[in-house]
Amino acid sequence: MHEDTIAAISTPIGEGAIAIVRLSGDKAIDVADRIFRSPSGKRLADEQSHTIHYGHLVDPSTDEVVEEVMVSIMKAPKTFTREDVVEINCHGGLVAVNRVLSLTLRMGARLAEPGEFSKRAFMNGRIDLSQAEAVMDLIRAKTDRAMNVALNQMEGKLSRLIGDLRQALLETLAQVEVNIDYPEYDDVEEVTIPLMTEKCTWVKREIEKLLRTSSQGKILREGLSTVIIGRPNVGKSSLLNSLVQENKAIVTEIAGTTRDIIEEYVNVRGVPLRLIDTAGIRETEDIVERIGVERSRQVLKEADLILLVLNHSEELSDEDIRLFEATEGMDRIVIVNKTDLPRRIDIQQVENIVGEGQIVTTSLLKDEGVEELEEAIAKLFFEGTIDSGDMTYVSNARHIALLHKAHQAIEDALAAAEAGVPVDMIQIDLTRSWELLGEIIGDTVQDSLINQLFSQFCLGK
Amino acid sequence: MHEDTIAAISTPIGEGAIAIVRLSGDKAIDVADRIFRSPSGKRLADEQSHTIHYGHLVDPSTDEVVEEVMVSIMKAPKTFTREDVVEINCHGGLVAVNRVLSLTLRMGARLAEPGEFSKRAFMNGRIDLSQAEAVMDLIRAKTDRAMNVALNQMEGKLSRLIGDLRQALLETLAQVEVNIDYPEYDDVEEVTIPLMTEKCTWVKREIEKLLRTSSQGKILREGLSTVIIGRPNVGKSSLLNSLVQENKAIVTEIAGTTRDIIEEYVNVRGVPLRLIDTAGIRETEDIVERIGVERSRQVLKEADLILLVLNHSEELSDEDIRLFEATEGMDRIVIVNKTDLPRRIDIQQVENIVGEGQIVTTSLLKDEGVEELEEAIAKLFFEGTIDSGDMTYVSNARHIALLHKAHQAIEDALAAAEAGVPVDMIQIDLTRSWELLGEIIGDTVQDSLINQLFSQFCLGK
Repeated sequence: MHEDTIAAISTPIGEGAIAIVRLSGDKAIDVADRIFRSPSGKRLADEQSHTIHYGHLVDPSTDEVVEEVMVSIMKAPKTFTREDVVEINCHGGLVAVNRVLSLTLRMGARLAEPGEFSKRAFMNGRIDLSQAEAVMDLIRAKTDRAMNVALNQMEGKLSRLIGDLRQALLETLAQVEVNIDYPEYDDVEEVTIPLMTEKCTWVKREIEKLLRTSSQGKILREGLSTVIIGRPNVGKSSLLNSLVQENKAIVTEIAGTTRDIIEEYVNVRGVPLRLIDTAGIRETEDIVERIGVERSRQVLKEADLILLVLNHSEELSDEDIRLFEATEGMDRIVIVNKTDLPRRIDIQQVENIVGEGQIVTTSLLKDEGVEELEEAIAKLFFEGTIDSGDMTYVSNARHIALLHKAHQAIEDALAAAEAGVPVDMIQIDLTRSWELLGEIIGDTVQDSLINQLFSQFCLGK
Repeated sequence: MHEDTIAAISTPIGEGAIAIVRLSGDKAIDVADRIFRSPSGKRLADEQSHTIHYGHLVDPSTDEVVEEVMVSIMKAPKTFTREDVVEINCHGGLVAVNRVLSLTLRMGARLAEPGEFSKRAFMNGRIDLSQAEAVMDLIRAKTDRAMNVALNQMEGKLSRLIGDLRQALLETLAQVEVNIDYPEYDDVEEVTIPLMTEKCTWVKREIEKLLRTSSQGKILREGLSTVIIGRPNVGKSSLLNSLVQENKAIVTEIAGTTRDIIEEYVNVRGVPLRLIDTAGIRETEDIVERIGVERSRQVLKEADLILLVLNHSEELSDEDIRLFEATEGMDRIVIVNKTDLPRRIDIQQVENIVGEGQIVTTSLLKDEGVEELEEAIAKLFFEGTIDSGDMTYVSNARHIALLHKAHQAIEDALAAAEAGVPVDMIQIDLTRSWELLGEIIGDTVQDSLINQLFSQFCLGK
């Protein structure tokens, strides 16, 4: 636990009223005391935990005042990292906060790596790995529902469920152990196999329940990559604008990159839609012409949802047919727009082509049909309603992959039991399943993975 | 003082580890208590001032947990606004912080207007107007030096100086008053005029001293609008890149606007250069072709600094001459680039045209001459050195305008005194000067102006 003391800017970068430089480690309060001057002359080290102090930061080498600050001290172990934590609230400008940070670094703190505060919280046992991951999901949540999923996970709901499953496996393993250690008792084996089968079937079903939430959980966490396509002048821009206007776009810049990588999300009934290539749609109408180009096909292929716009007042054209072909088999909603104009399109023909796909008619000009479209989107992915309450979702791709593997290992164990394979062989599968589930909460996980996971966190967290 | 309780997000908008929702007002702690649940069940109202509390925010209407938070309570009067202040530290995501804010609003807080916290600090007498303005300057400071200027002003250095000048004027006015009230004492007038002249001359000189710092102060505060021009392929992009690379660009988004309005600053020896139309330079090389266009001329006209790039390996062209003409009389540095190639340019001819202008030779390819260019820029505006220490700069356009007017009023008084105008006439000028100086610190200022000033602040400040 004798780690060095780390420091980082913990608020988003930009102009704001307040910014926070956070310190964590044995020397956090010491570092702060070396630069903090209270009007009353008090030392932070003498103050109680969880108190706030007004004063100035002074550069000891020049005796110059560097900032006016409020310093919060929180002493171990009741802190985010379980180490001593100091938060320096300073003015929210770029220069102000950088200057405070560099002063703390000169006083002996080390610049924290991304996610290092959360990593310490994990390493010091305050939270498990899935809880730590939920913290980042929470920060990146694009909708209320996504945030509820993350919040539940952060509060340990998923962890407890995983813990229960592992406990069941452990009990079964203990039984098997008895069986291996005392093979002379033939009747023990008799008891073990049915008991093991019962427990394993329960664990398997619970994992299946969890996995059923995963596609929805993943959508809530990462958003639906959505592409709007259609011939020129069918109303793609109007559709985009309607969605944005009714649902206030959430624009996020990806930290540490240039301003070019900007993602725009629209919250449609709790489903975060990530509108892809919207700039292209706004600027040009030539996406159809580029449909043959490999890159456009790639965009379509990576999309979770295709919104294909048709013109109600024109017959289906060859271009429309090509768009149908290019998006076949994808999650797609067909929007027949411009119902304010006389109908020329053969809706029956569209239904024949789309098959079970959703068709929505709209007049974006008259603001008609957008509600129905949103309902169709929610229905396509969430069968109409999203349980925002108590349900435990799996949303993280890492967790989903581990659950699939653990599920496979249990199925292997069950099949082996049925085939009369010796119990010590079955033990291997059960142990593997127990370990895989443990990786979710970070109980059985390698350092390299931990480092890699936390490095994806944002700075100062 | 019976104002309502206000709430706002006080950290920059974006993804970060921590965000703060700040409350101020009589009901701040009450609002927080209605949604805060501590594990121990304690109420914030019972806790001491300047303490921090861990817990959850719960929506009382649904009993759902909304966030995991740290709540800081600071009781009046020792707070930023001199009212009760609560700071809710939550996770730094867009959804998380908005959800906390809206919960506080539902519990009876009102969304703060931009600058309303600072306005309350001013209205409640904790800071004067020039100090409040310095807070925003501090947040927006682009360089260390700019921040020092703002910090000095925030700490009240300018306020004290203005206070001294006003005191001197007040004493003079008192003398004049005696003179008006007791006109029968002829000898009093005799004494008054020389004394008044002496005091006024002192005030006038002090104002002049301050005004001498204003152009530098203004540059530090607002940055130098800098335009790089030159024919195609002379190295404009290289120059831009060199400046950015050596001085890490500070990109700021202007709050509340679209992402299109982005300003890029480069810190050149403490001078913040705001690079204008850099996107244009990066994307196209046609600024020369557009030089005849009115808009380009407008950009040049508004620039504080022109960096005119020439090609060392080519003779001066008609285009170059047109660029010289278009930028005549402006603050301009001529950069003769590509000294790595054989010289074809007639430097003497350039010197003849530029006259007293600065000429710097560079090979941006070989990274030569950039130091000299930076020195030339610093010298052009700060004669080489910038006093970052104790000097009191006036940097705010409002302050500068008021100082000019106050200076004029004192000159009028002095001229009147010399011309033998009756003292009660002179009194008017002196009072006016005293009032104008008072406007700087907000002592004699109208409500409408105060509202307008604070509305330019950022949200949550």
